[in-house]
Order: sequence, then C-alpha cells, then structure tokens
Amino acid sequence: MNNARKISTEPYKGVRDFYPEDMAIQNYIFSIMKKISESFGYSEYNASVLENADLYRAKSGEEIVNEQTYTFKDKGDRDVSLRPEMTPTVARMIAAKTRELPLPLRWYSIPNLFRYEKPQKGRLREHWQLNVDIFGVKSIDAEVELLQMASSIMRAFGVKDSNFEIRINNRKIINYILNELFQLSEESAHKVSRLLDKKEKVEAKDFEEGLRENLQDKTKEFLTLMNSKNFDEFVFGLPKSAQAHEGILEIKEVTEKLEKLGVTNVVFTQTLMRGFDYYTGLVFEVFDTKPENRRSVFGGGRYDDLMDIFDREKVPAVGFGMGDVVIKDMLETYGLLPMTKSPADLYVCVANKDARGYAEDLAQKLREKGLRVTIDLTNKKIGDQIKCADKNKIKKIVCIGQDEVKTGKIKVKNLLSGEEKEATEDTIIDLVNE
Amino acid sequence: MNNARKISTEPYKGVRDFYPEDMAIQNYIFSIMKKISESFGYSEYNASVLENADLYRAKSGEEIVNEQTYTFKDKGDRDVSLRPEMTPTVARMIAAKTRELPLPLRWYSIPNLFRYEKPQKGRLREHWQLNVDIFGVKSIDAEVELLQMASSIMRAFGVKDSNFEIRINNRKIINYILNELFQLSEESAHKVSRLLDKKEKVEAKDFEEGLRENLQDKTKEFLTLMNSKNFDEFVFGLPKSAQAHEGILEIKEVTEKLEKLGVTNVVFTQTLMRGFDYYTGLVFEVFDTKPENRRSVFGGGRYDDLMDIFDREKVPAVGFGMGDVVIKDMLETYGLLPMTKSPADLYVCVANKDARGYAEDLAQKLREKGLRVTIDLTNKKIGDQIKCADKNKIKKIVCIGQDEVKTGKIKVKNLLSGEEKEATEDTIIDLVNE
Repeated sequence: MNNARKISTEPYKGVRDFYPEDMAIQNYIFSIMKKISESFGYSEYNASVLENADLYRAKSGEEIVNEQTYTFKDKGDRDVSLRPEMTPTVARMIAAKTRELPLPLRWYSIPNLFRYEKPQKGRLREHWQLNVDIFGVKSIDAEVELLQMASSIMRAFGVKDSNFEIRINNRKIINYILNELFQLSEESAHKVSRLLDKKEKVEAKDFEEGLRENLQDKTKEFLTLMNSKNFDEFVFGLPKSAQAHEGILEIKEVTEKLEKLGVTNVVFTQTLMRGFDYYTGLVFEVFDTKPENRRSVFGGGRYDDLMDIFDREKVPAVGFGMGDVVIKDMLETYGLLPMTKSPADLYVCVANKDARGYAEDLAQKLREKGLRVTIDLTNKKIGDQIKCADKNKIKKIVCIGQDEVKTGKIKVKNLLSGEEKEATEDTIIDLVNE
Repeated sequence: MNNARKISTEPYKGVRDFYPEDMAIQNYIFSIMKKISESFGYSEYNASVLENADLYRAKSGEEIVNEQTYTFKDKGDRDVSLRPEMTPTVARMIAAKTRELPLPLRWYSIPNLFRYEKPQKGRLREHWQLNVDIFGVKSIDAEVELLQMASSIMRAFGVKDSNFEIRINNRKIINYILNELFQLSEESAHKVSRLLDKKEKVEAKDFEEGLRENLQDKTKEFLTLMNSKNFDEFVFGLPKSAQAHEGILEIKEVTEKLEKLGVTNVVFTQTLMRGFDYYTGLVFEVFDTKPENRRSVFGGGRYDDLMDIFDREKVPAVGFGMGDVVIKDMLETYGLLPMTKSPADLYVCVANKDARGYAEDLAQKLREKGLRVTIDLTNKKIGDQIKCADKNKIKKIVCIGQDEVKTGKIKVKNLLSGEEKEATEDTIIDLVNE
C-alpha cells in the first residue's frame, strides 16, 4: 500500500460528522419528532437516498434537477439522484400500492436529503428532515391535525407558544387573485408568486419594481391588498363576491378549529407562498418570533395532484417537513438542548488481574438488569482508571479488588459529590439509579 | 408540466423501500443492536454517506474503488463516493480529533452502506450495518468484550446458543504460517489467503489446484495443517517452536475468557480470513449453525494500522459489523421476528359533526398521557369508521356522539374480542393499556 499521499481527515464538503455529542443531540431531536408523530397514530416509513432522476424531472424540469441535485450516471446508464426531498418518494411508494393501502394513511419519516448548493450557515448539502403526511382526507380537518401536531412538536421541545407562530395562507385564494381578479397570464402569475415568496428577503424597492413589470397600472391596487395588516382587512379588500371564496372559508375554519384545540398562535400571511409548485390549497410555515431568525422551522401544505405523474387516481394529501438544522439552531438559541448524555451509568474499575473475572460477571449481571456498564480495559492504576471514567463523564464507579471478591461488599462512588455508599451485588442497581 | 411520459413507481435498482411493516422490523432490529451496544457503554456516532473517494483509494486501490463503489465527480471536480463500509470513516473521525478524544473509545453506529454490484438474494446495493469498535486497547480483553457483545446481541434477538457459532482465527498465526513456515513470496501469500477465504465456496479440486500453484510440493503438508479437525490438532501440527506463538496464545486466552463469561459456542477455524486487508490480529465471524445458511451474520477483528493513512500515531482497534439483511433472514428462519406493531393504541370514532370538538380534546388529552391515538377524519358512517380502525390493525376504539359528550361515559371496545367496557375520560387509559 502506498502511503506517500496522506489522506485528509475532513468530511466531504458541506456534510457533517456526528461525533457522540452531536449524535446525542440529533437522537434527542428525532426522539421528540417520533414520539409526537406516533402519539397521533402515524407510522414510520423510509426508502433509499438513491432514486431514479426521472422522479424529480417530471415535476421540476430537467434543468433544476441537473443544477440543484446530486445526479450521476450509473454503469447501466441510468440517471441516479440523491433525493433532494421526500415527497416524490412517498408519492411513488403509495402509487405503487394504491390498491393494498387503506386510506387514510398517516405516515412519517426522518430521511436525509441532499441538495447541490454552496454550503452556507444552516443550509448544508445534506440535512435530515421530519416528513409527516396524511393521504386520503379531502376535508380541512387534515390540515388541522397536522398543524396541531406541529404545535405539539414545538411544545414537546419546550418552545413556548409566544416564541413561534404558525403562518398560513391558501393557494386557492392567491390563484384567484392572480388569475381572476388581476387576470395575469400564466407566466406573469408565476413571476408574481415567486416575488411574493421572496418578499421578506428583497428590498421593498426591488419588490415593487418586479411587481410593476407584471401588473403595470394595477400595481398599487395589488400592493394595497398584499399589505393588509390582518385577515379581516385582507378579506375586506377583496370584491364582495370573493369574500366567501373557498380559500377564505378554509382559512377561517382552520383558524377557528385550531383555536378550540388551544393552538392560538396562528397568523394569516397573504405573502406566504412556499417554493414548491405542487401545493394546491392551504400552505403554512412555522417561524421563530425572534425577528433575527427569519427562517421557517416547519413548512407544508396540501398537494392533491402529486399522483398525476404516476398515472394514478388523485389522492388528496397534506404534509409538512421540519429540518434538523433549523430546529437545532432554534433550540440552542432558547437554551432548550438537553445536557450531554453520559455513555454509561456505571464504570467498573478492576484493581488487579485476579479480580477481573468477578468484575466482568458483575458488569454483565448489571447490564442484564438494564444498566449501561463499562468495565475498565486499560489495566492502569486505580487512580488512572477513575480519571478515565471521569473523562467519559460517567458519574458512578465501583472498584473491584480481592476484598470485594471475597466479601461481596462493594462501594458505589459518586464522582461528582465524592459520596460513597456500600452495596451488595443486588443493591448496586438501586444506588446507581438513585 | 409534461405528463406524457409516466414515471415508474419502482425504487432504484437494488435498493429497498421500507413500508411501515418493513420499517417496524428494521426499527426492532436496530433497537436491539442499540440496546446491547449501549448496555456495554458504547456511544453512537454517524457521518454522511458521502465521502471523498480518496479515503477508500488509500487502502483498496483505484481499481476496486472505481469498480465496486458508487463514485462520481461533483461540479468542483471532486471524486465523491457513497461509503461502501464504515471503518475508514470512523478512522478518519478519530484521526481528526486524536488529541481531544479520551482513549479507550467505545463507539457504535448503524450506517447504510453502498456497493456497486449485481443485486442478488440478500446482497443488495444498499444495506444497513451495525458497526461496533473499541479504540485504544492493546490487550485481548478488547476482543473478549466485543465477542461477548456479539453473543449478547444474538441472545437478545432470541437466538439460542446452539443456533449460532463464533468462528475465530488469528492473522498473526496465518501470517507466520504463510511467510515464515512456508516462506511464500508476498504475492503467493496473498493469493493463498484469498483461496483460504473462499475455501467453503469453491470445489475441493479447484481449491487444491490453486494451492498447488503457489505451494508446489509443500501443498500436502499445508493441506494437512489446514484440514486439522480442531485447535489442538492444529497446534500439534505446527513446529514445536511455534506452538506458543503469540497468535496461538491469543486464541487460547480469548476462548478461555469467553468460556468463563458463559460464551461457549466459540470454534477455532483456521481457514477464516475475512476479506479486508487491514486486519492485523484476531479475526472472527458469527455463523448460523444451519448448514443451508452459509453466510456470516457478524464479522470483525483487530486492525491496529488503520490510522497510517492519516499520518497519525497508531491506535489499536477492534471492531465488528453486522448487516441488517442477514440477521433479518436468520430471524425470519427461526420465527423470531416480532408481530407487526399497530400504528395506534386507540381509534376515536366521531358519530357526528357536533361531537368532533369533544372527541379531539379527548384524543389530545390521551396523547399527553402517553397513548398513541388516531381520530377519525373520514366522516363516514360509524360502521365504516370501525372498519377503518380494523384495517389499520388498531385493536381498541371509542365512539363519541352526543350521549358521550353529555354524560362523559365512554365505551372502550376491543375489536378482537368484541368486549365493551364503560369508562370515563380518566379511566380510558387503563382500559386501553389492559
């Protein structure tokens, strides 16, 4: 083997290594996501990160797939992508078994997703994302359930209701405004949607200029509507005939139902668009209320047409996604991440070779009772063994020497308090769990 | 959007979709792996599936990396691989932080791994693998601990000791035999190693012929040694001066220590080689004792030289890997896979619109008490709602109508037994958990 060129210890550009302390945080975040999803009766599914590139080309177009996803040719000349999002995958899986799967389906997954872009703070090339979807429910109750879940997840993380808000909008009313009220061409409507989506990220001047190119002399009227300060003002700004539009009624119903369920931090936001083209009804995003943090923690909505690309019957669907990086940053900001977990409940020091057999037996018995037990393998002096426990943040230790083997009396020491208590094989577990 | 060409619902070639019932099995397998690893004080880590291709080229050579791994060029002209194994990654992570990480380190991970080969039964292009490693322990006690863990994992799955065996060998003694005893050239030694590795998979005639090409007139002598029926016969076949070789003593010590720990299904297997070039001492594999199933469930060994490629000081290391596909097949064969888990503990049927608010409140209260509760969103007739619970394998239901809202008396029905019991909001949880 040729070692002339030494290998870098850095991970690949834009992806993360998860050392045990990072992994513990990720596991904590995933465990809350799983617990709440399952408490609503959602089942976990998964798939490979590898997907046929065609799956994305159908909706996003060749160019976006080639530019923004990791796509390469395999030896069978197939175009393979690393999945950039989970929704096409779950749609594919359901389309494959439409006859066997009993609707409604409640599914969740926490896949890793890849996007090919310049790494920047919080937007890496690989991230994990909770995806929750309900398939087969036409009524707005599906949206209510998912928003209730989103709220439950935030609360389970310890985030106060005052620290986040749920912004909602409805594609149906936006489509009415663009296509019917302002009678824009398909192209102009698309451009204006994009502009609205970016409103908070661009200068007011550039925003207005962009609008003017598509709306000309109707720009002011459009701006007045889009700058409404709340839902009532927005509705009042619509023509009378549109004030009871399906999209408006849905927003009212969702807000009222959530309020009855104790979810009161819902804010109508007429500029909320969500980037993806496949949404067909209600869309929503959850934001940190701190103005410094402008990124959405959750995002989702209704997408009833996604089965089209598989030539299957329509299946109504509502779903949301929540990224691991954004929520981790938010929990960090609010001091809500848990303390690092110690790798073991007890460290067994071994005073000499003759005591090892007994010590190993003891360790195994305690493991079988449910303790996490590390036994010393350094064979160093007792003082150094204790240092080793300490460095690994293991709080409690026992030392096994000839005395302990003979008498069966074992002292459990707490390295934080310095306190020592005598135990027998049978009572150690109680002292460790204290 | 152009839907003229409909998209396939198949996953990419050689990878799996995990529908909820598949995911439940994988989660079960992973939970046992995690539980036992953590009971020994091992900490979980992870990394991205994407790695710089150089990481594998250093040890395996350009050709193997290009032929057997998924490797492609990114837009920055970097060669990127989908990791084919986890050991180079964990070695890289440790090399990056040698000064901060307190040795010994006990780490585990359950990564997905990719290999570019023809899909065949049980050998897919993507699989998951438990990787357990201990770094920084020179003594054979590290091997003992890992083999004890391997045995604990098999037992935790419910596999009887008589249904699996732990085969062990030692690279040190094999190297002595090839290089010193039979004085083979480096090339011949390598070829003979490969032959031994494949002994059980090739015809005896081809095996012997392959040996003869490298060992010529010493073939018979070599075969006698390699056909020894047990460890004692094997040792007896060595020259007197080699009967206390370090490699021999280690095998004795490991076997004896494991026996004291109650692990008695250890079998010395002189032809066991393990494919990877980086092993330096004890090697081991766990096999199903059913002769029909010739694939190893676990495999691992000592690899003390892996840090070399990073220009770091040597760190002694022992590790093993256990694939999800092989263990799943084995558990299936022995009838040890658990029953499919129901997605919820309780299904709440809603008799009419006016009862929905109360029903949703109730569902949420029960979730907060720890139950997994699905509420009906179909708004179908009660009979159809119950069918929906049944199709989803949810055993217990309640139906909320005006009577229940008024009286607070709620009947919990068991769909399997047909039994109904009356409860109040507060006692439902006990009846569901019964």
